[in-house]
Amino acid sequence: MIQAIDHVGIAVRDIEASKALYSKLFGVKEFHEETVEAAGATVASFMINGVRIELVSPLAEDTPLGRYLAKNGDGLHHVAFRSSDINSDIQELKHGSFDFIYDEPIPGAHNMLVTFLHPKTTGGVLFELCAPKPQS
Amino acid sequence: MIQAIDHVGIAVRDIEASKALYSKLFGVKEFHEETVEAAGATVASFMINGVRIELVSPLAEDTPLGRYLAKNGDGLHHVAFRSSDINSDIQELKHGSFDFIYDEPIPGAHNMLVTFLHPKTTGGVLFELCAPKPQS
Repeated sequence: MIQAIDHVGIAVRDIEASKALYSKLFGVKEFHEETVEAAGATVASFMINGVRIELVSPLAEDTPLGRYLAKNGDGLHHVAFRSSDINSDIQELKHGSFDFIYDEPIPGAHNMLVTFLHPKTTGGVLFELCAPKPQS
Repeated sequence: MIQAIDHVGIAVRDIEASKALYSKLFGVKEFHEETVEAAGATVASFMINGVRIELVSPLAEDTPLGRYLAKNGDGLHHVAFRSSDINSDIQELKHGSFDFIYDEPIPGAHNMLVTFLHPKTTGGVLFELCAPKPQS
């Protein structure tokens, strides 16, 4: 089940310049930073009252995010929702005629499994579903 | 001070079709709906765990939102933050070299006063500040 907004993702070309901008705008003192190889992106994020703001920057131009930025420029990129059971939500939404970019969730930031609903089936919005990786 | 994410705004051309889509996606049973004349928009919204999702549709093509949709199509439009003192936040951010679309807040949905940071000064993202209207 979809439980809550986990984060808002903002596509940025220059992550250091963006960190400086968001420090000034929201008084952010510290960013959580990590490289997410499966998504081909660097992620710098901070929390505002329980919702994360994620700045995502491509590791290379030839990645989905790199191509997105080349076409659209910096800006709002996706909204992510926490799921209590991501595989069950994927199956249920697929039966409801939504398509996913990954039918099997892939590793995301913050030790999460993630997938994205295809924007062609959601009126142009890139929605992410995410859930903590099961403990192994 | 900026306190929390209030809502995520999604620009849509056909509000009835979008309500049907979001009902299916999130199981929404009821939308709050209102016309916001000052913004030239119809707003249909619902809550997910304390954060509102707002579907915004222009009242006419010749409005800022109508022109946005003509250029960009349906999709993520803005992220709004609740402010504890919107006039003080506007002044403080203006000194920090951010520009606003409205230096004086205008009436928004949900009995709020609202303004928007100019995307040219925020790396392409349309951020809204909002605060409850003072009781008169």
